[in-house]
Formats: sequence, structure tokens, C-alpha cells
Amino acid sequence: MGRFQPFHLGHFDIIKQALSECDEIIIAITSSQFNYLEKDPFTAGERIEMIHNSLKESDIDLSKCIIVGIENQFNIATWASYLKSALPKFDKVYSGNEYVSMLLNDSDIQVVYPKFLDREKYNATRIRKMIIDNENWQELVPKAVVQLITSINGINRIKVISQSDTRPTEH
Amino acid sequence: MGRFQPFHLGHFDIIKQALSECDEIIIAITSSQFNYLEKDPFTAGERIEMIHNSLKESDIDLSKCIIVGIENQFNIATWASYLKSALPKFDKVYSGNEYVSMLLNDSDIQVVYPKFLDREKYNATRIRKMIIDNENWQELVPKAVVQLITSINGINRIKVISQSDTRPTEH
Amino acid sequence: MGRFQPFHLGHFDIIKQALSECDEIIIAITSSQFNYLEKDPFTAGERIEMIHNSLKESDIDLSKCIIVGIENQFNIATWASYLKSALPKFDKVYSGNEYVSMLLNDSDIQVVYPKFLDREKYNATRIRKMIIDNENWQELVPKAVVQLITSINGINRIKVISQSDTRPTEH
Amino acid sequence: MGRFQPFHLGHFDIIKQALSECDEIIIAITSSQFNYLEKDPFTAGERIEMIHNSLKESDIDLSKCIIVGIENQFNIATWASYLKSALPKFDKVYSGNEYVSMLLNDSDIQVVYPKFLDREKYNATRIRKMIIDNENWQELVPKAVVQLITSINGINRIKVISQSDTRPTEH
Amino acid sequence: MGRFQPFHLGHFDIIKQALSECDEIIIAITSSQFNYLEKDPFTAGERIEMIHNSLKESDIDLSKCIIVGIENQFNIATWASYLKSALPKFDKVYSGNEYVSMLLNDSDIQVVYPKFLDREKYNATRIRKMIIDNENWQELVPKAVVQLITSINGINRIKVISQSDTRPTEH
Amino acid sequence: MGRFQPFHLGHFDIIKQALSECDEIIIAITSSQFNYLEKDPFTAGERIEMIHNSLKESDIDLSKCIIVGIENQFNIATWASYLKSALPKFDKVYSGNEYVSMLLNDSDIQVVYPKFLDREKYNATRIRKMIIDNENWQELVPKAVVQLITSINGINRIKVISQSDTRPTEH
Repeated sequence: MGRFQPFHLGHFDIIKQALSECDEIIIAITSSQFNYLEKDPFTAGERIEMIHNSLKESDIDLSKCIIVGIENQFNIATWASYLKSALPKFDKVYSGNEYVSMLLNDSDIQVVYPKFLDREKYNATRIRKMIIDNENWQELVPKAVVQLITSINGINRIKVISQSDTRPTEH
Repeated sequence: MGRFQPFHLGHFDIIKQALSECDEIIIAITSSQFNYLEKDPFTAGERIEMIHNSLKESDIDLSKCIIVGIENQFNIATWASYLKSALPKFDKVYSGNEYVSMLLNDSDIQVVYPKFLDREKYNATRIRKMIIDNENWQELVPKAVVQLITSINGINRIKVISQSDTRPTEH
Repeated sequence: MGRFQPFHLGHFDIIKQALSECDEIIIAITSSQFNYLEKDPFTAGERIEMIHNSLKESDIDLSKCIIVGIENQFNIATWASYLKSALPKFDKVYSGNEYVSMLLNDSDIQVVYPKFLDREKYNATRIRKMIIDNENWQELVPKAVVQLITSINGINRIKVISQSDTRPTEH
Repeated sequence: MGRFQPFHLGHFDIIKQALSECDEIIIAITSSQFNYLEKDPFTAGERIEMIHNSLKESDIDLSKCIIVGIENQFNIATWASYLKSALPKFDKVYSGNEYVSMLLNDSDIQVVYPKFLDREKYNATRIRKMIIDNENWQELVPKAVVQLITSINGINRIKVISQSDTRPTEH
Repeated sequence: MGRFQPFHLGHFDIIKQALSECDEIIIAITSSQFNYLEKDPFTAGERIEMIHNSLKESDIDLSKCIIVGIENQFNIATWASYLKSALPKFDKVYSGNEYVSMLLNDSDIQVVYPKFLDREKYNATRIRKMIIDNENWQELVPKAVVQLITSINGINRIKVISQSDTRPTEH
Repeated sequence: MGRFQPFHLGHFDIIKQALSECDEIIIAITSSQFNYLEKDPFTAGERIEMIHNSLKESDIDLSKCIIVGIENQFNIATWASYLKSALPKFDKVYSGNEYVSMLLNDSDIQVVYPKFLDREKYNATRIRKMIIDNENWQELVPKAVVQLITSINGINRIKVISQSDTRPTEH
């Protein structure tokens, strides 16, 4: 579960962990309804494509992976229930986020705390910052992600958003 | 009218004022659609229960009190009209908020400025802060509120929200 | 649980049943966001007022009754979860509706099938039809409901809606 | 006020009436958020353009006319209030619809019943039916409307919608 | 593209066609936000699971298939644009629906009319009817779909919905 | 295109530029759904009236001007498409905002960078600040805007909003 803005090698590492421990995994893209925003520059479609292509270019068995977009809910108390309606049946959630654990507390879903691969380094906020500053972000993400971001002119998109004071969803 | 996050003795005092001056009162819970957020940790249902139980454990005549949740409106110019549709007929609003007075200005509703019981002390933002800091917040709210917050594990909820950088409704 | 368009003696009878079997009851007004429609002529506020006044004019102990409006959800699979967030804690739902039972199936909430007082006679659709046809509907509802409907010019409202082909929520 | 699907000579006649009786008029396009539907085939933009061009090709003084799109509201009880927020200040509404009169009843807005130019003949539902049946609908609308509908391939649009069982807004 | 209520062998046949003609395919589940309704009994999650499991139990290469839920839009004129934001990049849409073709008309997306495998027989509306009538629907869908529907008690769900007059999304 | 909170002489100057270069212009009021907020104090209706009256009191030919309100979209990737559905057909957008240019990039709409009349001086945020501080803002807006703001008690509205900590749309 993650926003995947963008999908990076830290995310990929957790996917590999989950795959080694489960029969099948669901990769849930949160905030899927948002895009062209500072914290959410990429569309749901672009994020699905990033993840699908990254799994495909590696030796991952895609028949064990389901990628699904999920939207933020305003009535957060119903989030666990929304999750169950939006995803194929699942038993565990891999998450290092205590807030997520709390929301799943009253459900029958188990929360697994994954091992993180250098969380400071593999961090989407930092990667977006590096893109703005023309630093070497490419080595922090799968090759397929570099290709996708390039093909959609994503570097420019992130820069334009960061320089603009237009915040269409804020009031 | 208030968010009641949580319901405290300052709120209770205003209810007593209103009851001494009116035949019946409506207690309107604003931002009722929000929960599990920093400023709005409790659900509408939990807040109704806090207020109902607090009135019940005191000597208040509940046949004179109606508790209603109301949602924030995006088209604020229609707020007075929304209020009339969501609540039983009413003549006056007790509010110390000039913004509320302005929104009711063109309507036939009278705004009464209540006497506040030490507004610095009885303040929901301060009480949530005290909960996070393990200070003595219990004496600022009715006993029924302490019981409810305890029974739903609300202290932990407020702490987890405050420590998390997950902000599901912000973009 | 009901739309209460309008609140009638059949509803009242179920409330009395529930009160005889429970410590406290919640009266949940569904479709609370709708009004001025053929099946939903009255606002949430008007329906709360109908029920509150009806209970008050009888010998019901109002300190045991909580009246709450709830909105229809588009993601119906989350309805049980929404219900829990919108209402004070509850253990049972009184409902003769199999659809409601199905939605509560996976939750820990018990569904009680109430005894209905002549369901053909005490039926809100029929009562609205009788209002349009100037028949004797008044004896099917509490006196407080007759008073409220009269005071808001509700008979005319139901007639105008039924004669109009304006259907603002249909497309 | 009207849906203007499409704008026809009956609408135009009422605009002339209003202009002869008022200093300025507002032409409010209702259901502005809907399009590509059986009853609402044209977008808000297309309807604004139909009306603007029709007024312009005649001898109407456009400095006295303001065209505004308004959306259907789900909380219909707030409609009068929404109308005031969406439109420049106005005193009267021209409408032959009793439902509209009812909704404006408690406001300070006067409702004027316009004279209708052969309401059976100049009727948008009938015109859409004639378009589907290849009948002579062109003489019932201003020339500018014929031009616009032709330029956007609107005849085909209405036919495709009528033959399809896709109803994206129905459930 | 389809609602897949439920996923049947006719759908599966079109997927095979598309796979024989394309490098990769996207299976888009429309009306993904709806469930527990007469025309839309299954949740998005259940439909994803039906399709995923059906592809997996056959000899389909899942690394070439992406399954995505998409929601109905109210502003239908923006549908082509929404589709592009919700899906990975695509060039063609397989659809036998003229309405869909019309909405994609002004875009750069090509519409391919698929060959249908006995459209009368393999028809989701008919299959739901057969489920209600206890007819032999199982042979019209992949085995994985029979298993899933059984495991979620889906036969009962469809029957309860069909017998109920509760229509939570209609007004 | 602008929020026009309020409409000022800098906006007016760009309208004159566009009128000198185009046959007809559309003045699009963005964030039209918001009002009574710090950055958006005026309703859509009030902003339409400001602009209409300002054009009318000058020597502008109103038959060449169409004023339309447009709402912020949450799925920003569909914004260009929404714009086309909400406005009459247009070829160019006058905008000095790179974010807007980016969103129109894949469409066939040309973006024209207008000449700005002293952008520091004619700036709506600064004008709202001057209103709060009782400075001489009147000379920065058309006379019609001064009249409108006065007639709706707008100076007080802006001050009350700025002094209040009520933020109904923030969470």
C-alpha cells in the first residue's frame, strides 16, 4: 500500500518481501483520484503503468500480483470497510504506518510491519525534490520508472507544479 | 453548535444557559462527516453518545434536548439554508463566532452571544493537547465523556493521529 | 430505522416494542439528505421534529431515545461500517427488511424482526397517496405529525411534487 | 430558467417578454452539469453558445442579458439559497413551474408566470424526438441553434444516445 | 471494458481476441463504485478477483493483462479524458457499444468492434436472471467465477436484491 | 480566466487586450463553487455581477463577451476536457500561469501570455489585504466593483473572514 509518487526501489523491496511470504499480493495505490499536485504528480494510470512495467522488467511472477487504485475516503472510520470492497479478499496488510494499523484494528485483518530498505534514501518526497534539483534520482527507482517519467515529460511536470502557486484542491 | 471534539464542561455550561432561556434546544454537531483527523478525532456517533450520556448523567431534562449532526458545506453561502433543512425549526443560535453571525445575517434567525466559562481553560484544542501530553484533562469534561473516550481507546487514537503524517483529507 | 416520510403509528409501535426490550434505542432516519421528492418530501429536520414531538406528546421516556439522520451511501458494501460511525454504539437493529439483514451479515450486529402493526394500513407510501387524494390520513399518524405537516404547509408540498414532472435528482 | 435541450423559439419568446418588463435578465441554464444523456444531450458550454448566438443574431441588446449555468442540487430545500449564490442579484423568476414556485415560496423572490407560445409545439422533448425521427425540427429553433447542433454533429449524438441502453448516471 | 456482473465466457472470448492482436491489454471494470444493486451486485474487489482468477486458471499470460476499475462520471463529456487518467497508456478500445465510440470520437483512440460469442447466450443480465431462477448458469462463466460467487454467498445476494424494493441509489 | 476575488483593473486590461485580438471572448471565473473563504470571499453570482457591471459601465461591446463560472476539478488531469464541456468553443486561452499551460499542453488549445499591467499593484490578494487594512483599494478596481462590494457589505465580510479561525473547507 502506498501513493507511489513515484514507485521506487524501497517499494519494490517490500513487494519482494511480501511475495516471499504470501501466495498472491495486492499492490494498492492510495490517493488514486489525485494527480498534478505537489505530493501527487502522477495519475492513477501512470502509477499502475510504473508498477506493472517495473515488475515485468524484473523476474517477478505477475500472475501473483494484482495492482489496484484506491481513493482517499472522507469518512475515515469506514476505510477498512472500503478497502475490503475495493480489493480482492486479503488477510494481511504490509504497512509501517501506525495510523493504518489503527484503522484496521477492529477488523480481522493482520498488519505486518515490513523491513524497510534505507527509508531515508528511498523516499518519494526526497525523490521528487531530487527531480526538481536535477540530482541523480534515477538510481533510486526501477528503470521502467525512469522510462515512464521521461516519456510523459514528468520531470517538467514536477518542476512546473513546484514553481506554481496554483493549488486547485486547497481552500 | 460546536464540533465537540471532545464535549467539555464549557459546552455543557452553554447548554444549561440555553435551557434556562428556551423551551427546547438543539445541540448541533458540526463537521459531523469528519473523524480520525487531528482536529476531528471522534466520529459523529461517538460525539452524539458523549453528549447524550453527559446530559443523562446530570439532571438535564432530555425531552427538551435534540442532538443533531450537521456536515460542513462547500458552498458556504447556502449554509443558513442547509441549517434550516437539517434541524427542527429554531429561532435563535447560541454562538460566540462572528463568522457564524455573518452567515445568519440575511436570515430571520437571531444570534445570541453566550457567556463563556473560562474559554482558555475549557477549550477542545487544549484538551486534545493535554490528552497527548498525559496531563489531567479528565476534570475538564463530564464523567460520561471520560468513560466513552476510555471505552473506545480514544486516548491512543488521538496520540496516533498526532504522531502520524498521514493526512487523508489534505492535498 | 426508516425513511419516516411521514412518521406514522406503525413506526411508533415498533419504537414501543424496542423500548420494552432495550435500555436505550436509536431511531435512525435514512435518506436524510433527500427532501422535496416524491418518495422523500420532508427534510431531515422536519422528520426529526415529527418524531421528537410524537414521542414527547405520548408517555415515552425521551432520555432513552436518540434520533439520528443517516445518509444513503453510494458504496453500499460499506454501509454497516458507515452506520457504526454515524450512530452511538448499538447491538441490534430492528428491521423487517432482508436487504438490511444481508448488509449487516458480516458484522457483529444482530437483526431483530419486529412485529408489524397492520403493514398494509400503516404504510408511508399509502399515507402520501391519501394526502394527495384528500382521504383521512390523519388517524394513521400521531397528532404531532398532523400538526407539523400542517404548520409547514406539507399537504400542498406533497400535492405539488406529485403533479410536477420536475425530478431534480433523476437523470 | 430552463434546461434548454435545445434552446427553442418558445424559450426565445419568454426572453423577449422578460426583456420588455425588466432592465436586465439572467438566463439560467439548469442541470448544467449533465450532458450526453437522453434528456440532457448538450453540454453547458454548448447551451451557452446556442443562447448567446441566438440572441446575437436577432436584435436583442446583449448588455441586458446574462447567461449562467446552474447545477441540480441534491438537498433541494437549499435550492433558493443556491440560486442566490450562483446568480447576480435578481428580484423575479419567470417560471410556469409550480414546483419552482414552491421552492421560492419562503424567499423574497417574486415568481412571474410567463405567457407561453404554443407550449405543445415549442417543447424540447418533442424537438429531440423530431431530430431522432428526421422530422422538420429546424423551424422550431433559432438559426444559430441549427448551426451549432450541425457543427457539433448533434443530430448523430441524439440518435446514438436514444438507441443505446447505456445510462451512465442511472443505478 | 465492461461491468462484468458477473465476468462470463463471452467476456473471456473478447479478452482472447484482444490478446491475439495486442502486446498488452487493459481490462477496465466500469461502474466500479457500485455494488449490492440489481444491475451491479458485485463489488469492484470481487470483480477484479473473478477476472484475475479466471485468467490464472486458464493458460493466459498474466504479465500481458492489467485489470483496472473505473468509475462512472457525471460529466460524461470528460469521460475520454478520465479514461486516459485512470488507465495506463492505450491506443485502442475494444467495444461493441456505439455510445462508447461516440465519446471517444474526438480523441486519438481507435475503437475496435470485437466478434461476440453468441451475445444472447453470454449476457450478464440473463445470467443474473438465471441465478435468481435457479437455472444452469454455471456453464456460462469460468470455473473461478462459480467458485468466487459461491464463496461470497453471491447467489443469495442476487436473490435478496431482486426481491427487495430497497433501491439505495434511486430517488 | 481568473478567480476575480475581486475583479480589478489588471483583469480589465487583459480583457481589453483579448478583445482587440479576438472576435469574441469568454471570461471564465475559476473556483466558482467557493465563497465566504479567505482567498474566495465572493460568490460566483457576485463575481459575475462585478464583471458584467464593469464591462457595461465602460465602452466594452458586451455582445462579444461571455462570462462563465467554472469549478475546480479534483481529477486535474481531466481539466482541459472539463473546460471544453463548460465553455462555448474556444481556440486560445489567455494565461500567464505555467501550470495552466501544462494542463492544456496535450490539447489543441493555444495559450497566449498576456501583457500584465503592473502585476504587483493590481493583485487581488493585495487588494483584499488593503480592504482589511482600510487602505485605498478603490482606485485599483472598476467603479462598478466598489459599488457592488459596498452594496453587499463586502468590506465587513472580508474582515470577519480574516479575523475568524473558522475554516469550513479545511481538514
